Amino acid sequence: MYERALITIEYEGTAYCGFQRQLNGPSVQGELEKALRKLLSQPITITGASRTDAGVHALGQRAHFDMQGSIPMEKLPFALNGLLPRDIRVTAGCRVEPAFHARFDARGKTYSYLIFNRRQASALKRNFSAYVPLPLDVEAMQRSLQDLSSTHDFAAFQAAGGTAKTTNRTLQSLTLDKQGDEITLTLRGDAFLYNMVRIIAGTLIQIGLGKLGEDAFQQAFHSMDRLALGPTAPAQGLTLCRVFYEDLP
Amino acid sequence: MYERALITIEYEGTAYCGFQRQLNGPSVQGELEKALRKLLSQPITITGASRTDAGVHALGQRAHFDMQGSIPMEKLPFALNGLLPRDIRVTAGCRVEPAFHARFDARGKTYSYLIFNRRQASALKRNFSAYVPLPLDVEAMQRSLQDLSSTHDFAAFQAAGGTAKTTNRTLQSLTLDKQGDEITLTLRGDAFLYNMVRIIAGTLIQIGLGKLGEDAFQQAFHSMDRLALGPTAPAQGLTLCRVFYEDLP
Repeated sequence: MYERALITIEYEGTAYCGFQRQLNGPSVQGELEKALRKLLSQPITITGASRTDAGVHALGQRAHFDMQGSIPMEKLPFALNGLLPRDIRVTAGCRVEPAFHARFDARGKTYSYLIFNRRQASALKRNFSAYVPLPLDVEAMQRSLQDLSSTHDFAAFQAAGGTAKTTNRTLQSLTLDKQGDEITLTLRGDAFLYNMVRIIAGTLIQIGLGKLGEDAFQQAFHSMDRLALGPTAPAQGLTLCRVFYEDLP
Repeated sequence: MYERALITIEYEGTAYCGFQRQLNGPSVQGELEKALRKLLSQPITITGASRTDAGVHALGQRAHFDMQGSIPMEKLPFALNGLLPRDIRVTAGCRVEPAFHARFDARGKTYSYLIFNRRQASALKRNFSAYVPLPLDVEAMQRSLQDLSSTHDFAAFQAAGGTAKTTNRTLQSLTLDKQGDEITLTLRGDAFLYNMVRIIAGTLIQIGLGKLGEDAFQQAFHSMDRLALGPTAPAQGLTLCRVFYEDLP
């Protein structure tokens, strides 16, 4: 008898080559599977909701896996955290239907991107933000951001290597807040193309610097040209905050 | 001709044995002196405003030093940051009077202490907070904190090894804020005894857990007994936010 479980995972991506298991270095998936194998005495393969890149962080990544036998779900996080490195924490676990899929059943995700805007870089946030030394026009960035609201063809907003069948995406919520030297972009959408959030963040930085016009996003929707947008902002500013499912907290 | 300079420093204390130069490992002071020696081609000794312990962070530590010759002060942070490790950043520099002293002339300091209050520890804040898995009564903590306001004899609030001549201290501002799982204590005072903020944070945690009464601080003022208070909270939750001087920003 197999049972399917869903776990919620927080991690700092700095030390990993990404979420997904890879041959060239340690991955979050690899660490989780190692801990699960030790805890449950059986080989376990997990499926993550999002394949975050090297250096990208998560507050609420999700992953499902099947296990033989049973372990009380409320004990799973504590037991796993005793076996995991300190930069990966399992914060919740629950049983799900055998057909549930962490990636395909996701109804939406929230990402945040942190820009550190000060003449000198940050020591404390160095692994959690993109450093921009020149002053940014935050109001121009906020105005431009509104052009991304609701449904668009985001074909221009993906890195080479994206495998999405359609490029229509819907963003339900977009905010850009400045607190001291920290500018935080928060996006909630139904789904995201490969590098889409980092391309949006990189374009906003160029708009804030005055190197791209406030209509850059609109131009990219019309031309469908990746070159209408700014460079992909660095991975370490990005955090996967939450993955949403129907009927699950 | 010697000139005296004052620099403002941000650092993550995780990798260091403390601010002060020591024989048993890398220190923030040691790294700064190494970079200054390289930049100015002369031996430099710096004097910090606060000797933060191993693992303690700073957003606005200050230090003064004397140098022969002259370098434009607005270029000093950039030049030093090119030579420093990424977890130490010089954020500002200015010329000061030859008699100015970073420690003795300090008129006040602000410290913050972060408590991470969730069943599972934090991956992202693991080096920047104390982890408390059991629920805390934040309102009880906030009420107790008010007993520390204004001037008291804080004799009970110091670790062995403190060298202060008097133990009267004045706290001008005390706040405890909860945002999600993060509880932040912020204290501004004229001066602090050795480990005073960490003892206050450790006592607040015990009050929040119900293991010490809300009158614990009052008891300690009367008995002057360190044992009336909670254990010293861990170093990594503490950040030196700012050092205040007369007539300096």
